[in-house]
Amino acid sequence: MANITKKVSWSSRGDESGAAGEETPLLNGSEQSRPLRQMSSGSTVFQIGRLSTVDLDEEITTEEQDSARGRPKEIPHNEKLLSLKFESLDYDNIENQLFLEEERRMSFMAFRCLEISRWVICGLIGFLTGLIACFIDIAVEQLAGLKYKLIKENIVKFTEAGGLSISLLLWVALNSFCVMWGSIIVAFIEPIAAGSGIPQIKCFLNGVKVPRVVRLKTLVVKVVGVIFSVVGGLAVGKEGPMIHSGAVLAAGVSQGRSTSLKKDFKIFEYFRRDTEKRDFVSAGAAAGVSAAFGAPVGGVLFSLEEGASFWNQMLTWRIFFASMISTFTLNFFLSIYHNKPGELSNPGLINFGRFESEAMEYNLYEIPLFIAMGAIGGGLGAFFNFLNYWLTIFRIRYVHRPCLQVMEAMLVAAVTATVAFIMIYFSTDCQPLGPDHTEEYPLQLFCADGEYNSMATTFFNTPERSVRSLFHNPTGTYNSLTLGLFTLTYFFLACWTYGLAVSAGVFIPSLLIGAAWGRLCGILLASTTSTASMWADPGKYALIGAAAQLGGIVRMTLSLTVIMVEATGNVTYGLPIMLVLMTAKIVGDYFQEGLYDLHIKLGSVPFLHWEAPATSHWLTAREVMSSPVTCLNRIEKVGTIVDTLSNTSTNHNGFPVVVQVSGDDEPAKLCGLILRSQLIVLLKHKVFVELARSRLTQRKLQLKDFRDAYPRFPPIQSIHVSQDERECMMDLTEFMNPTPYTVPQDTSLPRVFKLFRALGLRHLVVVDDDNRVVGLVTRKDLARYHVGKHGLEELHLAQT
Amino acid sequence: MANITKKVSWSSRGDESGAAGEETPLLNGSEQSRPLRQMSSGSTVFQIGRLSTVDLDEEITTEEQDSARGRPKEIPHNEKLLSLKFESLDYDNIENQLFLEEERRMSFMAFRCLEISRWVICGLIGFLTGLIACFIDIAVEQLAGLKYKLIKENIVKFTEAGGLSISLLLWVALNSFCVMWGSIIVAFIEPIAAGSGIPQIKCFLNGVKVPRVVRLKTLVVKVVGVIFSVVGGLAVGKEGPMIHSGAVLAAGVSQGRSTSLKKDFKIFEYFRRDTEKRDFVSAGAAAGVSAAFGAPVGGVLFSLEEGASFWNQMLTWRIFFASMISTFTLNFFLSIYHNKPGELSNPGLINFGRFESEAMEYNLYEIPLFIAMGAIGGGLGAFFNFLNYWLTIFRIRYVHRPCLQVMEAMLVAAVTATVAFIMIYFSTDCQPLGPDHTEEYPLQLFCADGEYNSMATTFFNTPERSVRSLFHNPTGTYNSLTLGLFTLTYFFLACWTYGLAVSAGVFIPSLLIGAAWGRLCGILLASTTSTASMWADPGKYALIGAAAQLGGIVRMTLSLTVIMVEATGNVTYGLPIMLVLMTAKIVGDYFQEGLYDLHIKLGSVPFLHWEAPATSHWLTAREVMSSPVTCLNRIEKVGTIVDTLSNTSTNHNGFPVVVQVSGDDEPAKLCGLILRSQLIVLLKHKVFVELARSRLTQRKLQLKDFRDAYPRFPPIQSIHVSQDERECMMDLTEFMNPTPYTVPQDTSLPRVFKLFRALGLRHLVVVDDDNRVVGLVTRKDLARYHVGKHGLEELHLAQT
Repeated sequence: MANITKKVSWSSRGDESGAAGEETPLLNGSEQSRPLRQMSSGSTVFQIGRLSTVDLDEEITTEEQDSARGRPKEIPHNEKLLSLKFESLDYDNIENQLFLEEERRMSFMAFRCLEISRWVICGLIGFLTGLIACFIDIAVEQLAGLKYKLIKENIVKFTEAGGLSISLLLWVALNSFCVMWGSIIVAFIEPIAAGSGIPQIKCFLNGVKVPRVVRLKTLVVKVVGVIFSVVGGLAVGKEGPMIHSGAVLAAGVSQGRSTSLKKDFKIFEYFRRDTEKRDFVSAGAAAGVSAAFGAPVGGVLFSLEEGASFWNQMLTWRIFFASMISTFTLNFFLSIYHNKPGELSNPGLINFGRFESEAMEYNLYEIPLFIAMGAIGGGLGAFFNFLNYWLTIFRIRYVHRPCLQVMEAMLVAAVTATVAFIMIYFSTDCQPLGPDHTEEYPLQLFCADGEYNSMATTFFNTPERSVRSLFHNPTGTYNSLTLGLFTLTYFFLACWTYGLAVSAGVFIPSLLIGAAWGRLCGILLASTTSTASMWADPGKYALIGAAAQLGGIVRMTLSLTVIMVEATGNVTYGLPIMLVLMTAKIVGDYFQEGLYDLHIKLGSVPFLHWEAPATSHWLTAREVMSSPVTCLNRIEKVGTIVDTLSNTSTNHNGFPVVVQVSGDDEPAKLCGLILRSQLIVLLKHKVFVELARSRLTQRKLQLKDFRDAYPRFPPIQSIHVSQDERECMMDLTEFMNPTPYTVPQDTSLPRVFKLFRALGLRHLVVVDDDNRVVGLVTRKDLARYHVGKHGLEELHLAQT
Repeated sequence: MANITKKVSWSSRGDESGAAGEETPLLNGSEQSRPLRQMSSGSTVFQIGRLSTVDLDEEITTEEQDSARGRPKEIPHNEKLLSLKFESLDYDNIENQLFLEEERRMSFMAFRCLEISRWVICGLIGFLTGLIACFIDIAVEQLAGLKYKLIKENIVKFTEAGGLSISLLLWVALNSFCVMWGSIIVAFIEPIAAGSGIPQIKCFLNGVKVPRVVRLKTLVVKVVGVIFSVVGGLAVGKEGPMIHSGAVLAAGVSQGRSTSLKKDFKIFEYFRRDTEKRDFVSAGAAAGVSAAFGAPVGGVLFSLEEGASFWNQMLTWRIFFASMISTFTLNFFLSIYHNKPGELSNPGLINFGRFESEAMEYNLYEIPLFIAMGAIGGGLGAFFNFLNYWLTIFRIRYVHRPCLQVMEAMLVAAVTATVAFIMIYFSTDCQPLGPDHTEEYPLQLFCADGEYNSMATTFFNTPERSVRSLFHNPTGTYNSLTLGLFTLTYFFLACWTYGLAVSAGVFIPSLLIGAAWGRLCGILLASTTSTASMWADPGKYALIGAAAQLGGIVRMTLSLTVIMVEATGNVTYGLPIMLVLMTAKIVGDYFQEGLYDLHIKLGSVPFLHWEAPATSHWLTAREVMSSPVTCLNRIEKVGTIVDTLSNTSTNHNGFPVVVQVSGDDEPAKLCGLILRSQLIVLLKHKVFVELARSRLTQRKLQLKDFRDAYPRFPPIQSIHVSQDERECMMDLTEFMNPTPYTVPQDTSLPRVFKLFRALGLRHLVVVDDDNRVVGLVTRKDLARYHVGKHGLEELHLAQT
């Protein structure tokens, strides 16, 4: 709603007013209407977000100038906004008296038991994640098998008789039908389940409370949705959603209850707080990666790279345990499913197949080639992200109604099938069907008997199988034209697909595109030199290309290297894969951010990166903090508290608690910090001083009451406080955190940032020399600053 | 010198006075003399360490009672002491005005350049570490080859002629000679270079300033020493020292100068502070691991597990880069050395050889066996540590003179050779010498022609080769008796060897012991069942045994798993290795700490673990802090400063800077923090207010002056301050850190610990409600508390 801007002047930029129009993000077009509408409703809106030391009138002018000046140049989007709707998770324990009393009561043995429970939970998380992966795999295999069999029979029937358009129609209809259901449940039931879920999990681990992201409903929609979309033949993978699924499972299992199902097992109550929950969600995400790629170490690294702000040996070890259990469970149940119990050859959903060391060793002179391929991957990845970025903006503006989203998804499914059909139809790349062919559904079409259509091995198959074929099929299986055409079409299809309202991952399509052009590179190399044996196997180049493309799109670093190495099952490729990913990242970052970061940015999420922007030493806490702050007295009138909480224009979540020292003339000193959620529980249980006196036998409020309410605290509106009660007093001493972290006003932004990020804070109180509250730093105050093309830039805050 | 104890009462332990005698560590025997001597020199000694709120007289009584009561029960050692001689590294940037001005002056491009320099430095670190590894490898191979050839010829000569005792003498003489030199340089030139260096690097990364640990001299002694000790036939490996070597290189390269060689390249000056240096040392340690085991990912994880308190994506990626370059360099130069340029088959110093997947796949029913082997490894590891622990205490007490140390090392070398000779001599295990035998120096001895002595393959070889033979030699190469005897003797030899004054690692001996009994397990399993094919390859069990034994001794977790997996080059073994390491750690931890932690503890190092002890919520900052604190005024008399710094009884390193507000009655408020090192630079440059006024043209003190003095700041005694100058004033405003982190007095210990550990602090100021300094928390205040067998225990502080 309100959109409050603030200018910061940089010495490096002389002409501030002139530059502002170019750099300040704009709100116009469809997005602009809302802020303007709000603005007319009076000056109150400016109390919504945060007030700074800057004059308000000035701000309004600036913004209006901006939108007026910028309109002809910039197309509207919300990349440079920071939404105020996201709350923060609290990764700092609220060490109030209740908590400390509980901790002090606990014996050493009790802590041991807790530790053991943590291991048990991690084991459970791993096991269940493995089971879900297994379920998805089997369901997809069965349904896709059914579909391909049906279509293949149909095609065989009509190839000779003519009328292949009927086959096409069948294919299109089947795909659209599947995708329709996959899209309907996502768009109408749980929109947060769309996409791979990786950006959402990144945000969660970063400390942003993304609404409904770890709920049971999301999990169900995610799992069913991904089955439909993969079976529907979209250019998607089933790997990304596994990470989200693992995380949801972890959040559920670790709490020992399901709020959705209204079932409380009365176990693991100690873990009902953000700090502990995050650790388990990390484990869940890792278990998901592990099940998806058969990469337990990669899973751990993924969790750490995305989530951990503080590395803890035991935590890491537990996460690794969950990962191992997960891949093992999947492996075990799939081995039973494949009627080879005990043969553990399917550690992940995607199986790169076995790379034999001898056949595929690389030589020193190939390394520059690999690096060049990395650069290509980086460039293509940036192009992919660029296209997807504009597509997403288009979707935000025009395709936001659920039924439109479903229709778009169906359209993509139909187009995918049609394109695939046309490509296969016109392809003349016939290959002999060897005795040991690995194709599940070889299409003969117009090829001679004993031969099959090579294009069909890439299109007429689940993407996972196509990747494997590209890696391992012997030299000569594909001709260059097939690969080139396939790369081109699949690139655009995958780009169009990502961001649809279906549950689907981008890993496999990226790998497939990369494997196709990588293999093409290998074939071209072999054809340019006379000694073909020098470039032994095009499969090797397919692998490098796949790594380059994936790296260029998602820009993960260490974790992706390890995931790729583990998925190939061969350490030999460590160095080339690392070089390729590094090059792809450097080249890609030059043009455009990674796909996940882009989507996080487009969601206006207050995401905290690893470090404060390098050039932000100019700013101090005084400038970044929100002020003035609504403070509460240690013994406060209930009416005041209710009014403060009910004030929709502020909607604060943390309140410094202050105490008046001597007389009214001197400002109050900080003595604690209390959260909205705590106050709500207190109000609900009517913990008022007068009541406590009159009813001495009344049960004392315990930590358990707070835990029972976690994480869905009721809104203030649902709590009825009578007029008499409003006159009562509340003593916050016992419930507030008496030792909140504080910083002096002059602390530089990087220093504030470091403290905030390293400890996973939600509120950081800024105090003056006399320990008086002067401001409050929250996540959005820090996430606002980022390095743009012209130095430090500031995002606008918006109530979108 | 002084030894100040403090009692804390626990509610969980009823009888405090009764329990104290048993749990309080003691100082008697030879260690006790010093504290007592100091104690008689007056009450001043009690100002040395830290004064608490507890009464002093009570403490003295307690201690004397303890020593009187405990003497008959406990043998003297210093495990439960915390030395005050270790200073802390400062991983928190000192953001004073000078620093902020510099940062603010820097453009975005300058930060880019810094980032590029960081990459260049990491590349250099990796390259040089690889080169050193290469040098060590080639030197050891050449010299050991020479030695074995000489002895073999001699043995062959005397086998038939009789008089093999001459061969034994030759062997003993050669070994002792080598070890003598290796030991002399360590014992007389640089004692810190003894052992593997891993505990020292762990301490450094943890934030403890271990004197001389990252100096050039240490590196030279380390490298030369390890060559001598491996060639000298000791039961040691050359892998551990690589980690230390990499770290020293990193510390040197990143500073762009060598203080020892008095050479300043005037580059990388920005990196001359603890914060930046630590990051590079992490990279160096990782590069060392990577070169040692061919495990780049394992190296990164090692650095993170041991060092990182805060995970940063770019830092991790840089560390990974250094690791990759390091293993690649080693690989490349070794391939040239082996006349196969470009064939990258030697990624590390230890090469486990190629494990073929088909031959060595494991079955589900083998997993319980692996876990059982893990338990055995944990038990044996704990026993190893237990023996080594007592041996180390013995050494601390009786073998502390350098010449004694050299003699002990020579004795061990002689005994090792003798035992090996006797074992080989009496062994009757003859094996046929196949056409493709891998033995470098097969000894025939009393075997028939065309056969060789099997015991000799384990003893008459470098340990690395022996490990490889145990992993890969075909079934039937060793008989059970040989392996059993070898395990037994080598176990005790390795245990005796670790802790000698030689530069040597414990990884390879551990692997060798484990591989021997692991292979024995494999052979026994095969012999108990009729279907020998079920337990296909004893090499598989050798690998599991090696992992179990190593895990049982060093107790590393994720990093060791990845190192083992990378060294085997086969991801298939991920799950069993992880299970084995986990079991070994759980079983081992039940009995005894890991070897490195044990040695850190014996060194009385104030090492901060990941988290505060679980049951420490009882304690608050008020109880753990040092108080009273020596504070300085913002404008302070030079004389006062000099006196404060010269006071040898306090020897503080950080001083809160305070400002008097209104009148003398009110206590001073905190306004900053200044370090001893900064004050010394200020005094050296005579930055006095009066001088600045009189000589207006004087060059202003810059950050560069501090950087030039880093890290070897002169002692206060070397700075001459005249009587006139003593009357001058110094203005600390510009140099102090104006925004030190603070905590209120009531903050619980875990909360203080978390802040301190996560941000890598050196000083944490404790303030009251009015922002007045009441105490200072430093590393030793936090490291003192640990969980013992009877709950929370407190270590004694000692000036040893």
